[in-house]
Amino acid sequence: MSLDSLFKPKSIALIGAAHTEEKLGGVILKNLLKFKGAVYPVNPKYSELMGLKAYPSALDIPEPVDLAIIMRPASEVSGILRELAGKTKSVIIASSGFAEIGENELQDEVIKAGKEAGVRILGPNCMGIYNPHHKLDTFFLPYERLKRPKKGNVAVVSQSGAILSCLLGELEISNTGVSKAIGYGNAVDINEADIYEYLAKDKTTGVVISYIESLSDGKKFIEKAKILSEKKPLLILKAGKGLSGQAAAFSHTGRLAGRYEVFHSILRQFGVREVEDFDVLIDATKALAFQGRATSEKKKGKIGNRVLIITNGGGSGVLAADECMRQGLDVAKLPDDKTDKLKEIFPHFYGINNPIDLTAQVRDEDYVITLNELKDDYDGFLVIALSNVYGITERLPEMIKACRADINKPIVFHIAQSGIAKKLTALFEKAKIPVYPSPEKAARALKALLSI
Amino acid sequence: MSLDSLFKPKSIALIGAAHTEEKLGGVILKNLLKFKGAVYPVNPKYSELMGLKAYPSALDIPEPVDLAIIMRPASEVSGILRELAGKTKSVIIASSGFAEIGENELQDEVIKAGKEAGVRILGPNCMGIYNPHHKLDTFFLPYERLKRPKKGNVAVVSQSGAILSCLLGELEISNTGVSKAIGYGNAVDINEADIYEYLAKDKTTGVVISYIESLSDGKKFIEKAKILSEKKPLLILKAGKGLSGQAAAFSHTGRLAGRYEVFHSILRQFGVREVEDFDVLIDATKALAFQGRATSEKKKGKIGNRVLIITNGGGSGVLAADECMRQGLDVAKLPDDKTDKLKEIFPHFYGINNPIDLTAQVRDEDYVITLNELKDDYDGFLVIALSNVYGITERLPEMIKACRADINKPIVFHIAQSGIAKKLTALFEKAKIPVYPSPEKAARALKALLSI
Repeated sequence: MSLDSLFKPKSIALIGAAHTEEKLGGVILKNLLKFKGAVYPVNPKYSELMGLKAYPSALDIPEPVDLAIIMRPASEVSGILRELAGKTKSVIIASSGFAEIGENELQDEVIKAGKEAGVRILGPNCMGIYNPHHKLDTFFLPYERLKRPKKGNVAVVSQSGAILSCLLGELEISNTGVSKAIGYGNAVDINEADIYEYLAKDKTTGVVISYIESLSDGKKFIEKAKILSEKKPLLILKAGKGLSGQAAAFSHTGRLAGRYEVFHSILRQFGVREVEDFDVLIDATKALAFQGRATSEKKKGKIGNRVLIITNGGGSGVLAADECMRQGLDVAKLPDDKTDKLKEIFPHFYGINNPIDLTAQVRDEDYVITLNELKDDYDGFLVIALSNVYGITERLPEMIKACRADINKPIVFHIAQSGIAKKLTALFEKAKIPVYPSPEKAARALKALLSI
Repeated sequence: MSLDSLFKPKSIALIGAAHTEEKLGGVILKNLLKFKGAVYPVNPKYSELMGLKAYPSALDIPEPVDLAIIMRPASEVSGILRELAGKTKSVIIASSGFAEIGENELQDEVIKAGKEAGVRILGPNCMGIYNPHHKLDTFFLPYERLKRPKKGNVAVVSQSGAILSCLLGELEISNTGVSKAIGYGNAVDINEADIYEYLAKDKTTGVVISYIESLSDGKKFIEKAKILSEKKPLLILKAGKGLSGQAAAFSHTGRLAGRYEVFHSILRQFGVREVEDFDVLIDATKALAFQGRATSEKKKGKIGNRVLIITNGGGSGVLAADECMRQGLDVAKLPDDKTDKLKEIFPHFYGINNPIDLTAQVRDEDYVITLNELKDDYDGFLVIALSNVYGITERLPEMIKACRADINKPIVFHIAQSGIAKKLTALFEKAKIPVYPSPEKAARALKALLSI
């Protein structure tokens, strides 16, 4: 069964709707007011909620809907599911109070009731769906506390609602758009594997990022992750490595840690990129959202890892080279003929090595000259333009954009915070060239572009 | 000889002053206009520069000065030094074009001329000094391109001018003040060890951070780093680990890499903290600038590493725990009696473990209750307050500030970017509680506070 009724419903019922944003059911209703299809709030105490006719119970919803959202105490949920039989195709259970706090029986009842009702379930204990392409937003977080990212090509899949909201906040600030955002919580029915399967075919999604705490079905996860990652870059942040991986390795028999290692190495075989922490996930996502895979068709082992670093500050170039090497990238020597040629073109005090040091005396055009000269000799470019000297101007982004059309390989920038950096960054990112505030962040983002 | 003439001069000469900010000598002169003592610009083409009387040569400076700054081509510098004999106590050679581009002879001449003239030299190829407590700024970077941090307690010592400017830009943005900033370049005379010696006694400096590419005198460095770190926290970022450490380990005989390991382990013995990258350096600096050492007197091994994580988002707590464990911190179990007590106080769906999960239903006061209950059981606290729920309000910083007076142990916060996060962060940081945009950054900052 397709998950279209969940991601692109035509009509929605909200069981547990409230009249005020002081209640979570009120926040959800407010967020649903932007939805273009029919919305049926259910609450026995009101005949009208936020301008919409309200219904006393799920049984009273006047027509079958694609999606029902439940925000009622855990103990009521299985009863509500039974009332929804025949009334809806899919259900988001936003309520918490199930297995995550040890209430396993309540969760088992929900599973049973869902099967009997013949509905697909997202949750419980979940944030639900944000689909800006469909004006759908089932989150219980108010806009004024979490501004949503604009429409874009990144799908965000998260077991944790908290991490989902943190990722969306960061993406919004870094001006990266999303195609879908899904918080799937306890995953009693629909899990990450089902979602990957759907996203593999979703035309609005170009990149998938996924935060995982635990897997319900490891084999299915691997199967669907493989299929997805053959079509689109997939970045995974696995939490609990410290707790279940390291601590468990000591307190148990090393079995869990061993399993984690297997999981990790299988992912790597498929070209699924597992990132080390939240910051790398955000930095890599921005790079992939802007520039996509280094090759249009994924050819395993065909993307090289030779990188050129161009800088106007020696120390920043060294830190970038350090991190590139830690990431396994090859900061390869310049070809001799190119070294000679650049030495002829540039002043004698420029450093013609890798990193190329254009010094504080740099002019915008030096970057273009260097990139054009060396575009065929490297697989990716890390460019540092410290804007605290007058030689760097606001013309640089346009110049790089123009020469990039010819290069068609990953390029990332590092610009340190100060002076015109904010303006420059905005101009670069409008041209789909990602900018990072430290040399190491830029190096890790370039690694993501060259390894996925 | 004290370096007071360098850090707190009464009068300054600028050889190579220019009339326009299009020239580096003009930028320096502009920045010196804020200085309260006498400034003597030297340039044979002008009788007046930016409103100051100009002098044709160093020989014509009308009185001996404490500090002379040279911004003239490399080939002229040793001649100028000879003219400065008897005219100045210390010299900053801002000019580049020496050993850093292979011009070793020019550099040797400078060393010889400096000795003959009896002056102390900072540089060449260096940024010089920014001392906001003395209104001194010798940088050749214009204010509009690099806003300087306010007065504060952090001394920034950097071999690279580029990294110095990047660090200052980040500190300014994160509202962290500096006591002194020093770019010492090729270090033909004054090196990092001399600067550490000076800063150890400098009353305005509470924390020292130092970016190093190479050491001219390893033994002296170790001696002065030890003395300094006994008085003040010292954070070091060593660059070129990848190049000279890793690559050299392969291409040579492992000797360089071996030496680096010795250097690293000696530093650790003194409690000097070596950080892994630029971002950690900035994050740790903010924590130390705000909260200082965990104990007023440094007692080796006496600072514990038991940390409590308090969160209102499960996933964020797990990521924080992962990073704490990677950093060697002990995410220790709650004492049984405290677990029982908190279970009585809080709703049944709160997670009373470490991390303590106050869930999306959190209220401000829950953080205070938890901190007060557990303040004696842990050495440091990592608190996550995701502000995308209405239960977190702008009253929280004041409440934490009040209870912190009692706790007197390191506390760091993670607040994800969105909604009121910016406002909340500003309020927390006004109360000297550092805030980080990811759980991992907060964990690394807490590590810095507990390990130095």
